[in-house]
Amino acid sequence: MSFLAGGFACKAYCKGILMALKQAIIIRADLGMGKGKMAGQTAHASLSAYRKAEREDLDAARQWEEEGQKKIVLKVTSEEGLLSLFEKMKKEIPCALIRDAGRTQLEPGTITCFGAGPAEESKINKYTKELKLL
Amino acid sequence: MSFLAGGFACKAYCKGILMALKQAIIIRADLGMGKGKMAGQTAHASLSAYRKAEREDLDAARQWEEEGQKKIVLKVTSEEGLLSLFEKMKKEIPCALIRDAGRTQLEPGTITCFGAGPAEESKINKYTKELKLL
Repeated sequence: MSFLAGGFACKAYCKGILMALKQAIIIRADLGMGKGKMAGQTAHASLSAYRKAEREDLDAARQWEEEGQKKIVLKVTSEEGLLSLFEKMKKEIPCALIRDAGRTQLEPGTITCFGAGPAEESKINKYTKELKLL
Repeated sequence: MSFLAGGFACKAYCKGILMALKQAIIIRADLGMGKGKMAGQTAHASLSAYRKAEREDLDAARQWEEEGQKKIVLKVTSEEGLLSLFEKMKKEIPCALIRDAGRTQLEPGTITCFGAGPAEESKINKYTKELKLL
């Protein structure tokens, strides 16, 4: 049994400093994806970014997971907006870009979203504070 | 770069028999969750079920992931319907039930969804064939 975004903050130690952990999923709202499609793409980005984060700091990834997988789903309204943010965030946060295989709803290879983290919450917020919730 | 539900089937060998792999997320459509909330809960279920599946058959979990994370998001319309299906599926498929921490939109502890698999596609389909896509 696990809990999403518990009342407590997810915390991990990095170089002796206590930090809160969060994952952000940034998704395109301009593609006309249905809610099921969006949910599937979000899950894809979440798992892929988690697997990257795991390779960089296994303890922090596990702690984020065990403490409730605090995450936020945010929207952008163009491919350019998505890619621009992805290019910036991937320099300091484990990020995974998702392209749809195009079996349903979208053209093959359409870039739909990306996952960032889990990573220190303040790092995530630095890039995402202007974005709106999906 | 990864692809969701590629044109190819995800395949793994189980006891020498080739099998296609899929994950299903079953989510309640009766809670009035917004699309962002649903996407977050789906991601939570997807990762939690994947982590369970990993512990049961690491090679199959990895293969499903590498070949595109084929997944399907399906809906039910009551807690009873969700729990009834969860109890059946968990007997032969790695499943993870998600309760919301209730910070936004829902009461704390509300059961929102569960993830099943990745597991053999035919096993997933046996339980989900009557359900509609989210």
